[in-house]
Amino acid sequence: MTASSFADRHIGPDRDSERRMLDQVGYGTVDELMDAAIPEVIRWHGGLDLPPAASEAEVIAELRALADRNTVNVSMIGLGYYGTHTPAVIRRNVLESPSWYTAYTPYQPEISQGRLEALLNFQTMVSDLTGLTTANSSMLDEGTAAAEAMTLARRSSKNASPVYVVDADTLPQTLAVIEGRAEPLGIIVRVVDLSAGASALPADFFGLHLQYPGASGAVRDQADLVAAAHEVGALVTVAADLLALTLLRSPGEIGADIAAGTTQRFGVPMGFGGPHAGYLAVRKGLERTLPGRLVGVSKDADGAPAYRLALQTREQHIRREKATSNICTAQVLLAVIASMYAVYHGPDGLREIARRTHARAAKLAAGLRAGGLAIDSDAFFDTVTVSVPGRAAAVVAAAAAHGVNLRQVDADRVGIACDETTTDAHLALVWQAFGVPAYTGDVDVALPSGLARTSEFMTHPVFHAHRSETAMLRYLRRLSDLDYALDRGMIPLGSCTMKLNATTEMESITWPEFANIHPHAPASQTSGYRELITSLESWLAEVTGYDAVSVQPNAGSQGELAGLLAIRGYHRSRGGHDRDVCLIPSSAHGTNAASAVMAGMRVVVVACDEDGNVDLVDLDAKIAAHASRLAAIMVTYPSTHGVYETGIASLCAKVHDAGGQVYVDGANLNALVGFAKPGRFGADVSHLNLHKTFCIPHGGGGPGVGPIGVRGHLAPFLPGDPLGATSSRTSHSARAGGTAGGAAVSAARHGSAGILPIPWAYLRMMGAEGLTRATGAAVLAANYVAARLREHYPVLYSGNKGLVAHECILDLRPLTKATGVTVDDVAKRLIDYGFHAPTMSFPVAGTLMVEPTESEDLAELDRFCDAMIAIRQEIESVASGTWPRDDNPLVNAPHTASMVSGDEWSHAYPRSVAAYPFGVSRVGKYWAPVRRIDGAFGDRNLVCSCPSPEAFED
Amino acid sequence: MTASSFADRHIGPDRDSERRMLDQVGYGTVDELMDAAIPEVIRWHGGLDLPPAASEAEVIAELRALADRNTVNVSMIGLGYYGTHTPAVIRRNVLESPSWYTAYTPYQPEISQGRLEALLNFQTMVSDLTGLTTANSSMLDEGTAAAEAMTLARRSSKNASPVYVVDADTLPQTLAVIEGRAEPLGIIVRVVDLSAGASALPADFFGLHLQYPGASGAVRDQADLVAAAHEVGALVTVAADLLALTLLRSPGEIGADIAAGTTQRFGVPMGFGGPHAGYLAVRKGLERTLPGRLVGVSKDADGAPAYRLALQTREQHIRREKATSNICTAQVLLAVIASMYAVYHGPDGLREIARRTHARAAKLAAGLRAGGLAIDSDAFFDTVTVSVPGRAAAVVAAAAAHGVNLRQVDADRVGIACDETTTDAHLALVWQAFGVPAYTGDVDVALPSGLARTSEFMTHPVFHAHRSETAMLRYLRRLSDLDYALDRGMIPLGSCTMKLNATTEMESITWPEFANIHPHAPASQTSGYRELITSLESWLAEVTGYDAVSVQPNAGSQGELAGLLAIRGYHRSRGGHDRDVCLIPSSAHGTNAASAVMAGMRVVVVACDEDGNVDLVDLDAKIAAHASRLAAIMVTYPSTHGVYETGIASLCAKVHDAGGQVYVDGANLNALVGFAKPGRFGADVSHLNLHKTFCIPHGGGGPGVGPIGVRGHLAPFLPGDPLGATSSRTSHSARAGGTAGGAAVSAARHGSAGILPIPWAYLRMMGAEGLTRATGAAVLAANYVAARLREHYPVLYSGNKGLVAHECILDLRPLTKATGVTVDDVAKRLIDYGFHAPTMSFPVAGTLMVEPTESEDLAELDRFCDAMIAIRQEIESVASGTWPRDDNPLVNAPHTASMVSGDEWSHAYPRSVAAYPFGVSRVGKYWAPVRRIDGAFGDRNLVCSCPSPEAFED
Repeated sequence: MTASSFADRHIGPDRDSERRMLDQVGYGTVDELMDAAIPEVIRWHGGLDLPPAASEAEVIAELRALADRNTVNVSMIGLGYYGTHTPAVIRRNVLESPSWYTAYTPYQPEISQGRLEALLNFQTMVSDLTGLTTANSSMLDEGTAAAEAMTLARRSSKNASPVYVVDADTLPQTLAVIEGRAEPLGIIVRVVDLSAGASALPADFFGLHLQYPGASGAVRDQADLVAAAHEVGALVTVAADLLALTLLRSPGEIGADIAAGTTQRFGVPMGFGGPHAGYLAVRKGLERTLPGRLVGVSKDADGAPAYRLALQTREQHIRREKATSNICTAQVLLAVIASMYAVYHGPDGLREIARRTHARAAKLAAGLRAGGLAIDSDAFFDTVTVSVPGRAAAVVAAAAAHGVNLRQVDADRVGIACDETTTDAHLALVWQAFGVPAYTGDVDVALPSGLARTSEFMTHPVFHAHRSETAMLRYLRRLSDLDYALDRGMIPLGSCTMKLNATTEMESITWPEFANIHPHAPASQTSGYRELITSLESWLAEVTGYDAVSVQPNAGSQGELAGLLAIRGYHRSRGGHDRDVCLIPSSAHGTNAASAVMAGMRVVVVACDEDGNVDLVDLDAKIAAHASRLAAIMVTYPSTHGVYETGIASLCAKVHDAGGQVYVDGANLNALVGFAKPGRFGADVSHLNLHKTFCIPHGGGGPGVGPIGVRGHLAPFLPGDPLGATSSRTSHSARAGGTAGGAAVSAARHGSAGILPIPWAYLRMMGAEGLTRATGAAVLAANYVAARLREHYPVLYSGNKGLVAHECILDLRPLTKATGVTVDDVAKRLIDYGFHAPTMSFPVAGTLMVEPTESEDLAELDRFCDAMIAIRQEIESVASGTWPRDDNPLVNAPHTASMVSGDEWSHAYPRSVAAYPFGVSRVGKYWAPVRRIDGAFGDRNLVCSCPSPEAFED
Repeated sequence: MTASSFADRHIGPDRDSERRMLDQVGYGTVDELMDAAIPEVIRWHGGLDLPPAASEAEVIAELRALADRNTVNVSMIGLGYYGTHTPAVIRRNVLESPSWYTAYTPYQPEISQGRLEALLNFQTMVSDLTGLTTANSSMLDEGTAAAEAMTLARRSSKNASPVYVVDADTLPQTLAVIEGRAEPLGIIVRVVDLSAGASALPADFFGLHLQYPGASGAVRDQADLVAAAHEVGALVTVAADLLALTLLRSPGEIGADIAAGTTQRFGVPMGFGGPHAGYLAVRKGLERTLPGRLVGVSKDADGAPAYRLALQTREQHIRREKATSNICTAQVLLAVIASMYAVYHGPDGLREIARRTHARAAKLAAGLRAGGLAIDSDAFFDTVTVSVPGRAAAVVAAAAAHGVNLRQVDADRVGIACDETTTDAHLALVWQAFGVPAYTGDVDVALPSGLARTSEFMTHPVFHAHRSETAMLRYLRRLSDLDYALDRGMIPLGSCTMKLNATTEMESITWPEFANIHPHAPASQTSGYRELITSLESWLAEVTGYDAVSVQPNAGSQGELAGLLAIRGYHRSRGGHDRDVCLIPSSAHGTNAASAVMAGMRVVVVACDEDGNVDLVDLDAKIAAHASRLAAIMVTYPSTHGVYETGIASLCAKVHDAGGQVYVDGANLNALVGFAKPGRFGADVSHLNLHKTFCIPHGGGGPGVGPIGVRGHLAPFLPGDPLGATSSRTSHSARAGGTAGGAAVSAARHGSAGILPIPWAYLRMMGAEGLTRATGAAVLAANYVAARLREHYPVLYSGNKGLVAHECILDLRPLTKATGVTVDDVAKRLIDYGFHAPTMSFPVAGTLMVEPTESEDLAELDRFCDAMIAIRQEIESVASGTWPRDDNPLVNAPHTASMVSGDEWSHAYPRSVAAYPFGVSRVGKYWAPVRRIDGAFGDRNLVCSCPSPEAFED
């Protein structure tokens, strides 16, 4: 072992700790433990064929070499991706700060007030700019936001027509994602040229999608189209550019029901396509139909205002029978950046940026016109389309030679987009490429005066108070100080795999050569990116035993959808149009069922037996009942109960024998890597969560990446290029992998390409041995926790020899019944002890699911176990009557500093027990900033934008 | 005003706030205010001839272009500068974290426990490795540490000889700094080849300097030399390489009295010469003679262990009559990095790195020998000197062509140093350059077995507990959370200019092209660096009105010394060998006097009048009294009282008329930029503090940079190249500026070159207008605070029209007399209110000096004023008897969370007053981690290394 081995830094317990943990669990070596825990029938003994582990320094050097093979041209391609200046203070103190990027989704709102405030700012910004009453806290990208808008319209429209009208001037990748989503749901997408007005609309349709400004750059007054749609009972979505909305009438003001889009150009780097925060906003009356996450204001136990997720539609709350969206993540880290960009610039600053951007576009157009060229539209914001009959390719090539990327619309037209980074020098290069002289004459504003925005936006003080860098820095620090992330302590969330997000893994994502690449940049400029993606896909294939991998899905939910669509495509290619039944065990994530519905399947639930395993008898019955309709089974392995089920191989065989396909949800892959390969033990497809097993940080609730691996027969049905099917595809765009014919599930070919260096670096630094050691360490840690806590809390399920996999479920139901102390109470009390709670009530209500991961060292594991044992003793004090059921440190948790230092104290236990329970240091304690939050109050009184400062007065 | 103007981000108050502040102060415009405040006689109306302000994006692009003109070769030059892997988790979370780099020196220990712990780790590490009992918390570099060791030996030796013996195998730059320091002090440096042993020593000398291993790489047993020196009563300094000490007997074990050196290779980038943390350690009995800062353990008001600076020798505590060192800063940020490198690797990891490094050197030597070449020494650690008669230049050139830098010792010898970054591939390139075949044979260890280290080191648990990246990350977070830095709120320290350290200014310093350059790299590889330095020097000259600038001094104190040495050199060049009197006003920083003593001058104090201004009558008298002995006057402008003295021009004229030179201390330059130029109103030389006016962050107590500007007649006496005077100078080293003949004051030609991109970026982004606006905003802010607080606390001094300059002194003496409430009480109470205290009792005991800087916005200025007014009312409650003198929120401040949540509360005021005084939010309050610290207790019971964990048990 050398001092520089990355695996030794990634894995928490050292050899001595491992020895002590094995003693507790009762095994001599990790190998013996794993032999006992994992069923031999799935065990892979062939090792992993990966390059040998590289050191951190070597990996940085390799990434540097890959980065150097990308060319950072000036991007004027547009099409929804723009150059932007990420304010350095935000990049360093959000995107590069572990306090922000290692946080989990704010399901424990008491310890997430910082990012909840940032997300509320985001919602307020989107809501204000779009002129609609309610915005959610981000979507995966503009394409999926538009697709969600379509299904939202379908749910809410009174018009029964299956037709969804999409304006022809829509971004091509958005159209591709809409079409991909529509088909399995039976929605007919009709693309219509609406430039002539409402007369082109069909007689009947349930929804209308408009782009504002259009993909061509044209700005049109769409009020008549909206009115016409409303006349037939259709809902209207306007996909709007937020920067343009600082100068143009908002979608709300022209009557739109829904607005969708991206906030990328608010300081978020292009990253070869993502991740960025998409947005979705709706008019009054539709807020309860919004998919995704919505932050709202409620109150805590003291009546103080407090934020939390409103109307939770998170995965475990999605009810199968009501599934309308499978969205269960957001792009929190990017939404925070975009919101802070708005906070830093304020409305005046944004308007100034928009004016400057427009002025450049207008000047560009004036120059081109002066040179005798025709611009497609007289009214535009930042983008113009120029006619150069037969010369488009030559002009684009000439510009590229000067370091500027333009968009070749077709053989005769070139698109040019300006943004806040565009300079006069760039315009000069563009004119040169077109062969027209530099222009120095007058320039008229090209925004239609009738569409000029007169309404205010972002009037809340938060958008006016942090204008200096010093003030901004302190605001970011103050918010992050309110939150609990991995940089404070363990986050033992079952099924979430909150392992180390190593700095070396994170470093390269903010390098300009990875950050500032447009997804449609010519292939000659992206060979470094493409090699990285190809390597990553091949390594993931090796780790999972699949034959092909696509990194396109930009969340686990999107991976599920892509995987099921691949199964659907496969069946249909063989004539199996009737195969639409998807079997799902009762223990599954809600997302699974929602994804199946979105893939056009019917969900049939398979029961679990009393040990928590899939009931193979019921499985036989369900297979028999659905016979030729059987499309697939969707199971998680190890199961959502944290157990290596021994029947998995048999399950796969039964489904295959009946003509079905096996989908193994890869959420728990951290328990398999190096020991078992889903693609080799019977599965046909899996999605992986790169934000779990492969170290992409959770970012406070996104970004996630959910690639899918498939066996060879499904490879032709992997997600296709979103630009592949449209005429406006950039001719230079290229594929890292082979051809794939499935529907696009993300707006960008490679999804959230910008963060793929993270898992790449992880795999490269761990190598086969490190990865395998990590799996063993994760399973050892879970069994160690189970062994230490078993006598205090029953461990609900286990497999071979009483062992769990990489997580364990602690059953609190008997204690709750006896004492009234709930899992919520224990979870909140853990905050007082300095921990993030384990997963609550999933997959079994009344339980806590603990996943320590391999990255926690023994000291931290023991600190957690000691806290849980101390809490068990506190529960005993309730049971014994020492403390009343309604006044004890559990039911009152978390305790704020304000509470324990109050002038009055009338509780049944002393302040010291409240503030400094067993093992908690008196120096540097993390204090929850608010007391227990009343979620139901907030849902009854829905407030989803920034409350007035007066609300916070004591 | 565009949204992207950097000046608008740097300057806190916006136009509306400026208006309101002017109203309070009673002026219509900032120009009117400045016209009133600044004496016309010094006013500069010529503007600043600087390039127009660039945007943040433009500056990053320009820095990128400069960086691209540096070549990052593999550095095997050695000579005290080595390649090292900065652990990414430490780089990101210390060097790139505002929580660490924007902190001030830990003079307020209650809010500095995090970095004090890190520094105590540093001291423990140095003490353990050197085998000496006490180490201080860092020195500026190895050269100045060695020079301080010399003067320490001078003070402590009983041998009256003026001779200091320096081993000929000493690093050339160290020798240059020692020689430069020795000459004005009358010390005679004798360089002796001690390779043959003690027989070469002279009969009498007071001190001996040894290098271990030697500059040639040779490792020798020096015990006999030490014994021989002790026989004549001399003290022995061993300049030791800490990495080598993990394998070699320590200086303490061979009997050394003092150890000095650098910790650069413990994770600190080379940065073209600095900044790095030097170190200094002494044997038992010498600890109270140690210069610089020493962290020690004491206790707080609850008796809990707490850290603070021990035996403070900080600038205001240096007593003129006892000045022995002018050191008043350290390299805290770099010392923290080096200490964390040790914490992360632990003793085993360090030994492993040392073994690996040695193994490469041994293999390298074996290959060279197998190729027929001679190595100078059989015993070495990481460096070998190879004889290639007549071929040295050719070999070095060949290696450089392969991307490897070697050291040309002379025409016949080449030095090669290995380090933790050296790979077998590098060895292959070196062999190739020498024309010998690659070596694959056996390799023997080349460390003398008699010198093998057998003693343990770094046995404290802190060096064993943070081995995983997760654990390390949390340790860094936990420590930084204990501290108060600019990212939390205002630090209104008078004379310290705690302004914004903008992220864009900081970004490039960690780019490899700036970070990984050896100070002796060939000029052809450093043209970007040199252009940056040349520009910076010329811009600083323009700002100050001087004719030449040197950035070599790596602290303000070193700038003072360099400036006074220039004056000394000038006088001597004109026959003025007797001119040795330096006039210093009684209000001066203690450092001024100490620097004068070190420059061989006698200090004569000039009185101040009752308004705090230099007493011109007394000045006349002192000039008359010393007449032909007058060397210089040293004044601060604006004065240390924060006032623009009107007599400055007259003062300059009087001194010049008497044949003296005028040194204007640039500590308060932030009140002058754009409005007055010292070089044009009569001064001959100034040092500037780039860590004040020019945005280098304070780093928790260093690095600082103290360039000097001089008028033309002093330019020949600027600091010279430390390699210029020695035979072992690298022939390629080049100068950014012209020739300079003064003594070297730093080990590296350009001092702390690695952080010069910070002031470069600041000047580049501000431009003339921005800089001038900043000065006006700083003066306005100080006058605003004075105006708001004057009725609550008398403002001690003011100048024209009752105005202060950029800071103001609040006089608490009447209140203290009336109530017993001291400046300490107010300072500590400000912590409860969420502020860092102003400067306490400098320059006038019993006062607070407030410098808000231009970067604080009006909201923060008002929050501070409100807190001070609320504290005034609290003092009133003591005066009125409402609260007893010995039990009130002032005398008990700061209040910890532990205290205010205690089960018992017996104070005369409620907990809510203690914890949440006026204006303090109940959410996200910063809590001091310890109560008031008893400094005297710690000085009586000196403990300067990590206490056992048991000490912290409740």
